[in-house]
Amino acid sequence: MAPTEFEGWLGVDKSAVKGNMKWGKFEPKKWAEDDVDIEISHCGVCGSDMHTLSSGWMPTPYPSVVGHEIVGKAVRVGSNVKHIKTGDRVGVGAQARSYMKKDCPDCSSGLENHCAIESVNTYGSVYPNNEGKSYGGYADHNRTNAHFVFKIPEGLSSADAAPMLCGGVTVYSPLKANGCRPGKTVGKVGVGGLGHFGVLFAKALGADRVVGISRKADKRKDALALGADEYIATSEDADWATKHMRSLDLIISTVSSEKMPMNDYLGLLKTKGTYIQVGAPDGGNLPPVNAFTLIANGIKVGGSAIGAPREIEEMLQLAADKKIKPWVQERPMEDANKVVVDFEDGKPRYRYVFVNKKHT
Amino acid sequence: MAPTEFEGWLGVDKSAVKGNMKWGKFEPKKWAEDDVDIEISHCGVCGSDMHTLSSGWMPTPYPSVVGHEIVGKAVRVGSNVKHIKTGDRVGVGAQARSYMKKDCPDCSSGLENHCAIESVNTYGSVYPNNEGKSYGGYADHNRTNAHFVFKIPEGLSSADAAPMLCGGVTVYSPLKANGCRPGKTVGKVGVGGLGHFGVLFAKALGADRVVGISRKADKRKDALALGADEYIATSEDADWATKHMRSLDLIISTVSSEKMPMNDYLGLLKTKGTYIQVGAPDGGNLPPVNAFTLIANGIKVGGSAIGAPREIEEMLQLAADKKIKPWVQERPMEDANKVVVDFEDGKPRYRYVFVNKKHT
Repeated sequence: MAPTEFEGWLGVDKSAVKGNMKWGKFEPKKWAEDDVDIEISHCGVCGSDMHTLSSGWMPTPYPSVVGHEIVGKAVRVGSNVKHIKTGDRVGVGAQARSYMKKDCPDCSSGLENHCAIESVNTYGSVYPNNEGKSYGGYADHNRTNAHFVFKIPEGLSSADAAPMLCGGVTVYSPLKANGCRPGKTVGKVGVGGLGHFGVLFAKALGADRVVGISRKADKRKDALALGADEYIATSEDADWATKHMRSLDLIISTVSSEKMPMNDYLGLLKTKGTYIQVGAPDGGNLPPVNAFTLIANGIKVGGSAIGAPREIEEMLQLAADKKIKPWVQERPMEDANKVVVDFEDGKPRYRYVFVNKKHT
Repeated sequence: MAPTEFEGWLGVDKSAVKGNMKWGKFEPKKWAEDDVDIEISHCGVCGSDMHTLSSGWMPTPYPSVVGHEIVGKAVRVGSNVKHIKTGDRVGVGAQARSYMKKDCPDCSSGLENHCAIESVNTYGSVYPNNEGKSYGGYADHNRTNAHFVFKIPEGLSSADAAPMLCGGVTVYSPLKANGCRPGKTVGKVGVGGLGHFGVLFAKALGADRVVGISRKADKRKDALALGADEYIATSEDADWATKHMRSLDLIISTVSSEKMPMNDYLGLLKTKGTYIQVGAPDGGNLPPVNAFTLIANGIKVGGSAIGAPREIEEMLQLAADKKIKPWVQERPMEDANKVVVDFEDGKPRYRYVFVNKKHT
């Protein structure tokens, strides 16, 4: 049933990230016939939710409802929307926009996630033209432009699909775009919420060999259980950089620090290999890269942001076809404040997903 | 006529780079039936010659004859060599090897310039297996494995071909490999010996728009005369980074310094754009790159080294077909010591080429 009012977990100031969100009503964006209203059954918990709740990246326009890994049922569908019907099980990712910009080179070429003109997150952003604010998925309902709403394929559970909508596609996109396929070897720096998807998707895309890379040995068991063929603990194996030199075609890094051994990571790449960063350190600077390293092996260092709608659809289908099982811990949405605290304590193994009992 | 002895300009210590090379005899590498002896008519003068003469990059095994942009006549051709005949006009670039390594993943996939197992420069390197040393083109003759010897196409003069064999292909290779073609816009950081080839080849490959980028305005006239559509003087136009933001598909940088405005350069790239570094600063570190810059626009920063044999052949044919005219200043090989001093004074506009009167 189409909602008559919207309610959710409101962050009202920076203390929200300490487990101080307040349940309450909010005014969704102004309805447009390109929109879909979703009755939320599940919502993944993502690190960027915490950055938003705490105004960590930039000042958040409180009150804010975070959560951008939303799954639920389409309960109102605008008359301009062709690909979604009322009653469909659908998902929404990290990005939305009130309308597609015709004059944007990114939006017109399937790179909406890099839109240069206007980008509105599913939460915490203000739409242009007095259309209101965007609110996320720690809530009963969500309203989003249908261009960013996807049908969830049969065979993929809602709890498994939810964290793929941001966390999953953030690693799926650079894997696919940089040639992860049979015959290739892939390294995954960081085995965590994002990183565990890296291992799952690299295997699903058919990579010959997937190597988990982390500082300590404590993630070895999990990495291998997820499907990794090998694991490197950089702080415990003194010879790792030499031993594994020039062995990988592609590295996806989901961790970052100005002190990480970047040039050693790059030394793991074969000629013409690619290193893609999807995490950003505080301040943003990566360790200095040595030009000779780039030149000698003809390698590239790049970045990747979430994923475009077409990539999200591809990924969901792959996950359904290959029966990919992310490591998800379901948590009741009414416990959201406790869950946020647990998340900040680094407890998830590897993704928390809210279950909204009202809608399951 | 096949040489009975080899003579050239020997660097005997670091003072060679001050114009103190000595003309004298040298023992070429041990003859193999994969080799070609070349009677040198022309040899380009390249910055890396100076690094070798001065032991700037690493200790040079003196005596050394530098020069790796060699053009001349094949006067002795090994019995295993199929693609060169005695009397052919041929060229040799920066790289050589006594034999192709069958077990090298680079050599077996057309990436010989990145050979991970063994790389011998045309000058100053010691071959394995007691085969002797390599000597370069500031000389009367050169002996090189035929895999690295190319026929010069008709219509391309020897003086124009010579500097393409290292300087030219160093920018041609990353332009071609990174999609320089009609519909694309290309920036060229640095307008000098290498950089001027960047403008020429980017236009020859059909780029819609080529933008010369340098610190000062004094190269503007040359850049436009070479074919650039636009020129940015970064130290004289305060708004350049904003004005030209997200306007380029590809940037090739032939200059480097730890202080260069790297993040501003990267801001010139469109979504999914590529920045390729072919120069390395002293010490090698590039300025720190901001991860958010890489991530937000999905861009890549890479390096490129010289070019593979197949790329050198493609480039020479393109140069002949498009009648590319590099800006070459011919200098008599007997004046080599003076030429080296002039080169170190930054005088070439833009490439010096030795002419060996004995063989022209």
